[in-house]
Amino acid sequence: MSIFEELESEVRSYSRGWPVVFDRAQGSWLYREDGKPYLDFFAGAGALNYGHNNPALKQALIDYLQRDGVTHALDMFTAAKRDFLEIFKEKILGPRELDYKIVFPGPGGANAVEAALKLARKVTGKEAVINFTNAFHGMTLGALSVTGNSMKRGGAGVPLVHATPMPYDQYFDGAYPDFLYFEKLLEDSGSGLNEPAAVIVEGVQGEGGINAARLEWLRGLDDLCKRHGILLILDDVQMGCGRTGPFFSFEDAGIKPDMICLSKSIGGYGIPMALTLIKPELDVWEPGEHNGTFRGISPAFVTAAEALRVYWSDDELEKSTKAKGERVAEAFAGLIKRYPEANLVAKGRGLARGMEFADGKLAGAVCKEAFDRGLLMETSGPDGEVMKLLPPLTLTDDELGTGLSIIDESVAAVL
Amino acid sequence: MSIFEELESEVRSYSRGWPVVFDRAQGSWLYREDGKPYLDFFAGAGALNYGHNNPALKQALIDYLQRDGVTHALDMFTAAKRDFLEIFKEKILGPRELDYKIVFPGPGGANAVEAALKLARKVTGKEAVINFTNAFHGMTLGALSVTGNSMKRGGAGVPLVHATPMPYDQYFDGAYPDFLYFEKLLEDSGSGLNEPAAVIVEGVQGEGGINAARLEWLRGLDDLCKRHGILLILDDVQMGCGRTGPFFSFEDAGIKPDMICLSKSIGGYGIPMALTLIKPELDVWEPGEHNGTFRGISPAFVTAAEALRVYWSDDELEKSTKAKGERVAEAFAGLIKRYPEANLVAKGRGLARGMEFADGKLAGAVCKEAFDRGLLMETSGPDGEVMKLLPPLTLTDDELGTGLSIIDESVAAVL
Amino acid sequence: MSIFEELESEVRSYSRGWPVVFDRAQGSWLYREDGKPYLDFFAGAGALNYGHNNPALKQALIDYLQRDGVTHALDMFTAAKRDFLEIFKEKILGPRELDYKIVFPGPGGANAVEAALKLARKVTGKEAVINFTNAFHGMTLGALSVTGNSMKRGGAGVPLVHATPMPYDQYFDGAYPDFLYFEKLLEDSGSGLNEPAAVIVEGVQGEGGINAARLEWLRGLDDLCKRHGILLILDDVQMGCGRTGPFFSFEDAGIKPDMICLSKSIGGYGIPMALTLIKPELDVWEPGEHNGTFRGISPAFVTAAEALRVYWSDDELEKSTKAKGERVAEAFAGLIKRYPEANLVAKGRGLARGMEFADGKLAGAVCKEAFDRGLLMETSGPDGEVMKLLPPLTLTDDELGTGLSIIDESVAAVL
Amino acid sequence: MSIFEELESEVRSYSRGWPVVFDRAQGSWLYREDGKPYLDFFAGAGALNYGHNNPALKQALIDYLQRDGVTHALDMFTAAKRDFLEIFKEKILGPRELDYKIVFPGPGGANAVEAALKLARKVTGKEAVINFTNAFHGMTLGALSVTGNSMKRGGAGVPLVHATPMPYDQYFDGAYPDFLYFEKLLEDSGSGLNEPAAVIVEGVQGEGGINAARLEWLRGLDDLCKRHGILLILDDVQMGCGRTGPFFSFEDAGIKPDMICLSKSIGGYGIPMALTLIKPELDVWEPGEHNGTFRGISPAFVTAAEALRVYWSDDELEKSTKAKGERVAEAFAGLIKRYPEANLVAKGRGLARGMEFADGKLAGAVCKEAFDRGLLMETSGPDGEVMKLLPPLTLTDDELGTGLSIIDESVAAVL
Repeated sequence: MSIFEELESEVRSYSRGWPVVFDRAQGSWLYREDGKPYLDFFAGAGALNYGHNNPALKQALIDYLQRDGVTHALDMFTAAKRDFLEIFKEKILGPRELDYKIVFPGPGGANAVEAALKLARKVTGKEAVINFTNAFHGMTLGALSVTGNSMKRGGAGVPLVHATPMPYDQYFDGAYPDFLYFEKLLEDSGSGLNEPAAVIVEGVQGEGGINAARLEWLRGLDDLCKRHGILLILDDVQMGCGRTGPFFSFEDAGIKPDMICLSKSIGGYGIPMALTLIKPELDVWEPGEHNGTFRGISPAFVTAAEALRVYWSDDELEKSTKAKGERVAEAFAGLIKRYPEANLVAKGRGLARGMEFADGKLAGAVCKEAFDRGLLMETSGPDGEVMKLLPPLTLTDDELGTGLSIIDESVAAVL
Repeated sequence: MSIFEELESEVRSYSRGWPVVFDRAQGSWLYREDGKPYLDFFAGAGALNYGHNNPALKQALIDYLQRDGVTHALDMFTAAKRDFLEIFKEKILGPRELDYKIVFPGPGGANAVEAALKLARKVTGKEAVINFTNAFHGMTLGALSVTGNSMKRGGAGVPLVHATPMPYDQYFDGAYPDFLYFEKLLEDSGSGLNEPAAVIVEGVQGEGGINAARLEWLRGLDDLCKRHGILLILDDVQMGCGRTGPFFSFEDAGIKPDMICLSKSIGGYGIPMALTLIKPELDVWEPGEHNGTFRGISPAFVTAAEALRVYWSDDELEKSTKAKGERVAEAFAGLIKRYPEANLVAKGRGLARGMEFADGKLAGAVCKEAFDRGLLMETSGPDGEVMKLLPPLTLTDDELGTGLSIIDESVAAVL
Repeated sequence: MSIFEELESEVRSYSRGWPVVFDRAQGSWLYREDGKPYLDFFAGAGALNYGHNNPALKQALIDYLQRDGVTHALDMFTAAKRDFLEIFKEKILGPRELDYKIVFPGPGGANAVEAALKLARKVTGKEAVINFTNAFHGMTLGALSVTGNSMKRGGAGVPLVHATPMPYDQYFDGAYPDFLYFEKLLEDSGSGLNEPAAVIVEGVQGEGGINAARLEWLRGLDDLCKRHGILLILDDVQMGCGRTGPFFSFEDAGIKPDMICLSKSIGGYGIPMALTLIKPELDVWEPGEHNGTFRGISPAFVTAAEALRVYWSDDELEKSTKAKGERVAEAFAGLIKRYPEANLVAKGRGLARGMEFADGKLAGAVCKEAFDRGLLMETSGPDGEVMKLLPPLTLTDDELGTGLSIIDESVAAVL
Repeated sequence: MSIFEELESEVRSYSRGWPVVFDRAQGSWLYREDGKPYLDFFAGAGALNYGHNNPALKQALIDYLQRDGVTHALDMFTAAKRDFLEIFKEKILGPRELDYKIVFPGPGGANAVEAALKLARKVTGKEAVINFTNAFHGMTLGALSVTGNSMKRGGAGVPLVHATPMPYDQYFDGAYPDFLYFEKLLEDSGSGLNEPAAVIVEGVQGEGGINAARLEWLRGLDDLCKRHGILLILDDVQMGCGRTGPFFSFEDAGIKPDMICLSKSIGGYGIPMALTLIKPELDVWEPGEHNGTFRGISPAFVTAAEALRVYWSDDELEKSTKAKGERVAEAFAGLIKRYPEANLVAKGRGLARGMEFADGKLAGAVCKEAFDRGLLMETSGPDGEVMKLLPPLTLTDDELGTGLSIIDESVAAVL
């Protein structure tokens, strides 16, 4: 029995679909111990938008380590944090005319979500939150309570309360007006809906099945929140940092959420880091009212700052992401045409792309075929029915072509 | 206005007491941008037991980065994780005859706690948990619900339920039998106490004021839990990894908790990492029932494994920690003798040491004086009345002497 | 200052709209102390379906009291309870081929609802319940959590959780398919809806604004519950006992709910009494697991039994209720025609009738005018916009005519 | 199969210990259908302090019914309610210099408790409540959450939260200071105890085992509440109305709770009625914020007022109750002496008396023997280990003698 099977809890999951031991990684590739390469269309579930061990970030990181830059500093002031703040202001907030204060809520996306929910409740004095069908926001108790997946919810072991799910965009395939039920419940003082402190939403739902909200739906939601005095929390943990093209998934909608959750690729190099951006008027916390040990990991600040410098000084990455996304969309359109009876549905935006199969078995079988051909992809959606593509944004056109060919073959092997 | 004040949320706290910008760090020292050194008796709130940028770990880390070892891998199999698991078995579990499976619950201590609570509830089908007065377990909703501090609890914005606090060891200065109320409530079917799934406890309470439970109290708690079929969760996030001498804070009590939470110094180098150790019979999770993005950060595995190799192959660190701890205890005894009217109380075990002052103002003033003299210490306890010493375990005798001298001067300046 | 103002809490409400002191009552009439009669189209909010001090019931009650029949007996066996059970079986359960066991849950409707919710949760092991927009089920914590009115919910002082509101019939005026959102959430394992133990519903919503569910909607709900293994709780506290024509409000739909809540008019004479009818297979309670002091009030059993004998031995009352209801409907149709610009909407079924005005101010003004003319009616609906008619089912045609004339005049005085 | 077994839920309990059908009742006696008399030392679980069908009350009630006094009136003004309010002020509030406003919270004791908890939370803006070990406050969700019995709590089907149990008086047989743990948790801001809105307590715990709090303990609790700004709710549902001698169970302690819950015997004749008395400054409810159908049952007002007139115009009943209570105490002392090895413990105050046996089996066997001899008594306490005497306060000395003799014989038959 391997040490993994002996010691690691049965809760492990990715290693079941990909039962190999990885050792090295570079750019879009992961390498098995024996050197066999795997093209990575999974990218750390969105944590590796700039690819594995990105050379520019790597150099900055090693330089920092070499010179004994402070590594761990909680919420002390450090030169590394200052540099990150300045570059984040210069490259991200400033150009987009966004006025936010930054909470370092802890190391991961769930911390960013927990902090946002806590603050929304503190500010409003209300407990209730609206989430959306098939949302995913994390595994800690607060974040889990706004997550949709019933298996994961069941793991909580306590009733998950204080959240009411509303239909995400296109939940009824556009057959009914947006926010039909949500707005009626808000307007009706006898509806029984607890007045919500906040709405939490993803610009594109990743775990939920690569459901990309239309920009007008996001605008509608923003407008609804404003009209009813509800705070809008945009969870961009997986879909931010350029995944859909622009830095934020909601940018093209022209909205400015009250709070934004960032994590995964914000650190750039796969080292844990998270941010909760909050409108300045919401910054009502007492010092230390929310805290945590891993809120000042300088190696992440260093690679985060470098990533912003390299990739967000101009719009090249955004354009290339959109272009590559279009190429995936075209490839998917081809598949749909080729298998007219398979009821395939192409989903997504930018380089967050999904192909919905008739059921989870088919999607899983395609991913299995792809793995056998050296391509890593996972499934998502409530029944795992969506083949999910999250390649590094930095993959080359050739790599994208290689991946799409393997997908073609894999689909052919299954359908 | 500095970029920190402009952009960082008011929730920041350490930077208020230490309003300087740190840049480099080495061993027991943090350096201000202008080079001014600060002796660090805070050690990342316990995350830097092996000191800042420990050379052995640093070399292993840089080597790994240089050779493009995979950085981020969720719960895939990696060579780095295998190495960590093997060394953790060899150096920690094996010699102590501990039989646990390992959950990688997410990047921080709160994740380790949330995972333990979720699993305890799933296994037992009960929701209630017993925590202790002045406990600290984290800031996410589940972890916060078992935390004592009222200001931090207030930040939740929802009623924190499912936990009932019981008196920690010495809560009544030994005047009453241990577990008096707790056991009576358990035995009385009319007590109104919801039958608990688990008890969560720290071997030494750090944030709560460096309250060190007596070993017989821990044994009594373990025994009580066994007799009543309650799972015992030992949160060793801050007090594990050698802080009190042995690797685990409860080792000398001879107990084997049902679950153990580790984080902070387990990664060795200040990079986020956490473990939840669970008895094999509790490993009932479905694959993926608990997950998260930052559960496979190889740089942390690398430095974690190296730290175990360097520091836990023999009992030198344990002995030296105990010896240095005794030296602190002696110094504290001296202070108590010198200021008989100040009602000073010395607390702690190993290199988790505290000196309780009459109130938080005095303790804070001493820490301020120490900071002005180049020593970093924080306060803890419900009113911040405890001066808290968590130096790196690797500090030299000279450094310890220097620190104790500064403490002497600082106390003298205040009392 | 009157003793009422001096001693009674500000929470009192009916005495504000009707600031007179009543003394006697008979049939459809309440009499002021000075003898001034008021025609009662309120009927104890549905507790007096057989009129005030119904002579047949009165005689049976006085006879019972005279002969010192046991008054209070908790859940002991009494001759009075036996008689009630036998007659309830003979007149109600038997003819309708209904197979239920009877819980005496406590004195009032809220007790019937609390007992049903408790049992549904015990049987299914689930906590969540589905309620409907504008539902009213009572003021105790469990019942309140499934009630819609936001002012009343706010009175709870704790977050009301475990219930999710779904749209009641015609919530969108029939524009969308029934159960559109409800069924989709149930079918989607990623919806985030906690799997419900039960649905609780009123056949006609009284407090919610006299919203009468269509029979096919009730059948659809019953079918949906069956398909998803959800228990159906029919709260007939206000609308049962013949209020809509048949004994149960749902009878004409042909459904057999898993549990039925009865109170208000079941006792016949306004003395507190409540029943929870449960399918035999749900009768899993331990003896005493639910109890209470006022579960065996013999005076109520006596008048309840007598009411069943007198009014439910044939279908005369049902027919007359339907006929009188039609007469109200016609009168309302006349009003709608007469005031085409007032956007009046006629609502209800049987002798539960409502007229919706443009707002609560208008409806309130009409009720005020009616009161001044000697007619008691209250408003209902989330904004009090519905004039609500619940006359005794035993009122004479003349009395109905008198009441409708006063309504005509009152509307004319306002519109 | 009898109609009871056929139709009544398995939840019924009293009819199991007393499997006979009662028909008539008078004073201290219940009569089986065949006329066999049973001496009633149970008195409707405290609802029949003035005996069954008390002639004075009966006449007033029949007179009221005969003249068609209004029966059911919600919270309208009625002459019957006015009379009750005036007499309650004259006989109860005035002489005791108590200044309360009166809420009619619904028909039963649980309603009185639910109303008190709701109001305490509304007034303070806090959710948490302190209850006591072995408390009993009712079966609705709010009342159940502050009740101790684990079987009854289990019936809730949802986790019961927002309440923390503290030790009732003598929980440790006086071995430790009163309020030791409670006060320490309140004073320690790090204790993890949610700041309580209110404390709810019984002057004597009936269901909990006839635990009579010492008067100084009640004073200590009142003092503690005042010092910490916590509202004190005194649940006198079972122990009020003279059960312990004075009208209120806490009178002799000289305290004035913030809220008082009354029900059971307040109506006098076993007809459901309940009151929540609140200090005038707490009367912050909106009209209708708490409501309910059965808040104005005139027959209960009539018998309640008559009972106050007959029994509370002088101190005869109080004296006689205390004297009879002493007689029970002496008889119990005799039993204790007679059975020195049985570890009998006498409990209670006034005519709320209990004898604790070594276990519930013994206490149950004694009650069974008593029943066979024509005496009704129930057991209470967490394991049913206490034989509980709640005779009508109006029983004659002869009846008391008869009952005590039967108890003597029954104990002899068992021990």
